[in-house]
Amino acid sequence: MTSEARPADLARLSLNTATTKHLTLAEAAEVAARAGLSAIGPWRDRVQEVGADRAAQILADFGLRASSLCRGGFLTAADAEGRRTALDDNRRAIEEAATIGTSELIMVVGGLPASRVPGGAAEPYASGDGVDPGRDLGAARDRVADRIGELVPFAASHGVRLVLEPLHPIFAADRAVISTLGQALSIAEAFEAAVVGVVVDTYHVWWDPDLQRQIARAGLERRIASYQVCDWTLPLAADPLLSRGHVGDGFIDFATITSWIAQTRYRGDIEVEIFNDDVWNAPADETLSTMVDRYRRHVAPHL
Amino acid sequence: MTSEARPADLARLSLNTATTKHLTLAEAAEVAARAGLSAIGPWRDRVQEVGADRAAQILADFGLRASSLCRGGFLTAADAEGRRTALDDNRRAIEEAATIGTSELIMVVGGLPASRVPGGAAEPYASGDGVDPGRDLGAARDRVADRIGELVPFAASHGVRLVLEPLHPIFAADRAVISTLGQALSIAEAFEAAVVGVVVDTYHVWWDPDLQRQIARAGLERRIASYQVCDWTLPLAADPLLSRGHVGDGFIDFATITSWIAQTRYRGDIEVEIFNDDVWNAPADETLSTMVDRYRRHVAPHL
Repeated sequence: MTSEARPADLARLSLNTATTKHLTLAEAAEVAARAGLSAIGPWRDRVQEVGADRAAQILADFGLRASSLCRGGFLTAADAEGRRTALDDNRRAIEEAATIGTSELIMVVGGLPASRVPGGAAEPYASGDGVDPGRDLGAARDRVADRIGELVPFAASHGVRLVLEPLHPIFAADRAVISTLGQALSIAEAFEAAVVGVVVDTYHVWWDPDLQRQIARAGLERRIASYQVCDWTLPLAADPLLSRGHVGDGFIDFATITSWIAQTRYRGDIEVEIFNDDVWNAPADETLSTMVDRYRRHVAPHL
Repeated sequence: MTSEARPADLARLSLNTATTKHLTLAEAAEVAARAGLSAIGPWRDRVQEVGADRAAQILADFGLRASSLCRGGFLTAADAEGRRTALDDNRRAIEEAATIGTSELIMVVGGLPASRVPGGAAEPYASGDGVDPGRDLGAARDRVADRIGELVPFAASHGVRLVLEPLHPIFAADRAVISTLGQALSIAEAFEAAVVGVVVDTYHVWWDPDLQRQIARAGLERRIASYQVCDWTLPLAADPLLSRGHVGDGFIDFATITSWIAQTRYRGDIEVEIFNDDVWNAPADETLSTMVDRYRRHVAPHL
């Protein structure tokens, strides 16, 4: 669909490429454009396999904006080499975001050091009677704040914002020691809103009793960099990471949360990011069609 | 082990009977006493199968206190019959708690109405453009507060405290719309601390960035009715409800959380409540032995 022919009511809807995991960037761009979308949120693997310059050209060819780049982060390593490796990788991610033309780099900040065991088990306790460093959640959180601070000048010089993503507490041990929007905002507070922001992903924050207040706070501080929508379905998939559903298939009250977002006057993109084997195995045009339908029914009316 | 022979350092350790799921109350009492414990926290199914009077006698025979009764709650039904059924059942639970001699009735408050579908799927949305009542988290939370208020006089007259249990947000849809200790305390605030309290279960709250402050608040308000310990293990079990591990097998920093509990001057029981197929299938004496060992290594030194 040419840029001119795209429906006006979909102007803010963006396909996060995780939703069409098996497609290349060019294939995802093609189905997004065909469905009438104007934006796409690529993951780095799909950008890197063609290179960031070529990725930018692909988006331009299909008349698409990049709504964000997923993802930087994994900043919690306790050792010097882990720290250096993470900072280097995040600098590359910042450059890639700038090259594909998005200001928003989503950051999944990383879990506890004790989680770096294949298969997901926990490392045994270190000896000693004090706090085990592998399980020291406070220290891991402090390292995130420190390393965000180290990345800020580089991000600012590239016009890229580091977007802290609170992840559902189910992932606190192994993926993200930032578990609530309030916590993300408290880390962001030390920095300019143009350089450190937050993402509100319904899957991760829908349960939070403090959500309304923290969304309002994020809006007042101009830190909302992305609103991501997908649903909390049950029973959980064997891999809980793959347990997200299309909007409307689960338990999340999109009417209420979307109205809180609307009240902040956030006017940016709304990404659909679904990790789910059934969705990944469906024909991509069908996935986009469901995504558009659910957006029109459960999200757009409340914007 | 006779009451006199029991080790002093285990005086506060209690076996929650969920940890020995396949044992009757008498069998669980026997292994707890043999392991040197002075307390047990029974579930209602094990009390009801012998009757509360007989249950009280069994505990007395083994020289055990009841540290709590699990559990009341499930207060979120949106319809009049669901409300009446829940209130009736909770009144019975209050009577049972009083009969077995514990003042602490643990309350798992219930999930969203949309979760009442066999197998755990979500009910389809109700028609209409507004908030779907089955997914209205705010309304479900308000009903919990209202119904706690309805139960308070009956509980007070029986000398029983309604103990609000915040559950991990993984259970927000289908088990408990109270997800944080702060939220539980805010509901409790309207009532006397002797009648509405909270439980701190490490499995449910370990990830909370506000945990230290909320434990301190719970202590100041004298609302801590129980400290329950078990670990967050990965990978999650297929049924995430059964994914708890022995203290020390997972990611939780018991040194830090236990020291926060100690700072409140909480002097009550510490229950071990583990839902885990492997633990349930182990010989009960082995389970108790592991439980005692882990308590001595990871919990007791920080009390």
